[in-house]
Amino acid sequence: MSEYPLKIVGIGQYLPEKVLTNEELAEKYGADEEWCEKKAGIKERRVAENETIAFMCNKAIEEACKDAGIEASEIDYMINAGNAFDYLMPEQSIYNIKECKGIRNDIKYININCGCLSFMAALDMAASLINNSDYKYIVICSGLIVTKMIGISKDDESFTVGDGAAAVVIKKAESNEKSGIITARMETYGDFSGAKGFVSLDNTTDTRFFSKEVLCKGVSYEFDTKQMQSEGIKHNKGFMEHLFPKIKDNVDKVIPNQSTRIASDMLKILFQSNKIKTIIDKYGNTGAVGPMLALYELIKNKEVERNDSILFYAMGAGFSIYGLLLIY
Amino acid sequence: MSEYPLKIVGIGQYLPEKVLTNEELAEKYGADEEWCEKKAGIKERRVAENETIAFMCNKAIEEACKDAGIEASEIDYMINAGNAFDYLMPEQSIYNIKECKGIRNDIKYININCGCLSFMAALDMAASLINNSDYKYIVICSGLIVTKMIGISKDDESFTVGDGAAAVVIKKAESNEKSGIITARMETYGDFSGAKGFVSLDNTTDTRFFSKEVLCKGVSYEFDTKQMQSEGIKHNKGFMEHLFPKIKDNVDKVIPNQSTRIASDMLKILFQSNKIKTIIDKYGNTGAVGPMLALYELIKNKEVERNDSILFYAMGAGFSIYGLLLIY
Repeated sequence: MSEYPLKIVGIGQYLPEKVLTNEELAEKYGADEEWCEKKAGIKERRVAENETIAFMCNKAIEEACKDAGIEASEIDYMINAGNAFDYLMPEQSIYNIKECKGIRNDIKYININCGCLSFMAALDMAASLINNSDYKYIVICSGLIVTKMIGISKDDESFTVGDGAAAVVIKKAESNEKSGIITARMETYGDFSGAKGFVSLDNTTDTRFFSKEVLCKGVSYEFDTKQMQSEGIKHNKGFMEHLFPKIKDNVDKVIPNQSTRIASDMLKILFQSNKIKTIIDKYGNTGAVGPMLALYELIKNKEVERNDSILFYAMGAGFSIYGLLLIY
Repeated sequence: MSEYPLKIVGIGQYLPEKVLTNEELAEKYGADEEWCEKKAGIKERRVAENETIAFMCNKAIEEACKDAGIEASEIDYMINAGNAFDYLMPEQSIYNIKECKGIRNDIKYININCGCLSFMAALDMAASLINNSDYKYIVICSGLIVTKMIGISKDDESFTVGDGAAAVVIKKAESNEKSGIITARMETYGDFSGAKGFVSLDNTTDTRFFSKEVLCKGVSYEFDTKQMQSEGIKHNKGFMEHLFPKIKDNVDKVIPNQSTRIASDMLKILFQSNKIKTIIDKYGNTGAVGPMLALYELIKNKEVERNDSILFYAMGAGFSIYGLLLIY
C-alpha cells in the first residue's frame, strides 16, 4: 500500500472539434511552420470555438464517471484545478456544477490554482481528503481555453497553446491495493516569476494591482519560456537529488509538462525516452490540463497497467517544480 | 476530540492605513451616508493605496506566526484563500512567497477560490491535510483589494466594499485537545449565480468567455445582492435543518458573511444577537477575508476561549451556502 492511498477509477477528456494545424497558423498569422514542429514539437492544437470551459469540463466529467461506473449524483467533492475560467466571478466550479446533470446540491467544491502544476497539487491534496473524510468519490476536472485568454497573435508563444479539458474520478484504495501516492515534493523560488506578469507599455499604468485599467490600458502580459527553462536547468538537479532516493528503480512512466518539447527533452537525461509520455504534438501547450490528457492516453492505450508507477514532473511559472510519484 | 482535529494556534491581520468614511464617500462619490450606515451597516472601510495583496498577506502571516510562536521557516503548506490577486498569472501564492522572509523553498502551496466561502473551504480542507500528511504547520492567508478590482463608482454596491488581509496558523490537535471541526456542510444551487457575471453593454460582445475583449469592451460586471438574499431566504431553512442536529446546544459564537447587515440579521432568527459577531461597521464587505477578521477580533478581545465553539455560516455567489462548526 502507498503512503497516501488513492485510486483513480475513471478518466475522461474533451477536445474541441476545431483542429488548428501549423499550416493554417502560417497562413492566417504568419507562424513559422518549421519552428512550430521542430522547435516547439507541435503539429496541431485544438481551439474552442463555441465550447465553454464548463461545457468541456462536463463532457470530461461525464466520460470519467461512465469509466468509473458511477453516476454524477455519487460525486461528493469536486476540485476544479487550473488557472482558466469562463468568468472571473463567481468561481468556475459554479458553472461546472450548473451544467452537470444529476449532481447533488450538497457536494462540496473547491477551485484550486497552482498554474501548470494544478493537477499535481490537486491529486496530492485529494489523497489527504479521501483518507480523512466521508467522501466516497472525488472528481478533479480541469479545462482551458487559452487561445481566447491570451489570443492568437503574431507571437511565437501564442502559437504553442491549445484548448481542452479532462477529468478523473478518485476513490479510497482498499487496504490490499497498492494504488496511491508514494511521494510528492514541491519547490518554489520566488526570486524569479517565470512569467513577467503585466508589463506597462506606456509606463503610466501601475501594474502592481489587478484592475480593469491594468488589463485594458496599454498593458501586455508577458511570459518568458526561455528564462523559465534556464531556471529549470538551475534547480532541477537539486530537486531530483531530493526526490530520487524515493523514486529510483520505481518509475514506469514519466509525464512531464506538456508545454514545450524542451520540458520533456530535459527529462531524457534522467529517464529512458520510451518512458516519457508527451501529447504536445497533437494538442500544444494545454497548461494544467496537459498532464491529465497524457494520463488519459497512457491508460486508454494500455501503456500503463494497474500498479505501474507514473512520475508527474512539471515546472510552473513562479518559479515552481512539482514531482509526484503515483502508483496507478 | 473533534471529528476532524485541527487547532488554530496563531492569527494575524493587516488593514490598510487609509480609512474611508461614509462622509468622504458622500463628498467624493455622492454616496448616501444614511443608506451606508443604516441599510448596509457600514460606518467606514479601509482602502489599499500603496499596499499590494502580497504585502498585506505577509503582514498578516508575520503576525500570525509571531502569535503562534513559530518562524516563517516552520511553515510546511500555504493556502491562499480567496478570489483576489495582484496578478492574473502566476498565482497569488507566488507573490506571497516572494515577499515572505525566511520561508523555505520546499513548502507546498495552493491557491483556492470559493469566493466569499473560501476561508471555510480552506479550513475544512486543512483539517484533512493536517491529519493525513507530515505537515506540522499550515498557514491560510487571504487578502483583498476589492476597491481597485471593481473600483469605487456611483454604485451602491461599490460603497459597501473594503480591503484587508488576514492569516491563521494551523497545527494538529493533540489527542487530549478538543479543538477541531465538528461538522461542515456545503450546498450549491447552480440555477442562480448570485452574481450575474459579465453583462454586455452593447450586445455585441460574447460574454461567455474570459478574454481581454470581454473585460475591456463594453462589458460591466454585475452583482445582485438583493437577489442573493432572496435566494438565501429560500435555501437557508433547509440547510439549517440538515446542519442543526449536529450544532444545536453547541454554538457559542456565530460568524456570518461580513457582506451586508442583512446577512447577519437573517441569523438573528436562529441565534441570540450577542452570539453573532460582525465587523462590517468598521471594514465593510471584505469578502473571503471577513470571517477571518471577525475571528481575529473574537480571539483578541477574548470574546472566545479555547474549546468554545464558533459557527461559520456564509452565503456566496453561485448560489452556495457553507456552514462549519469549529471548536477553537
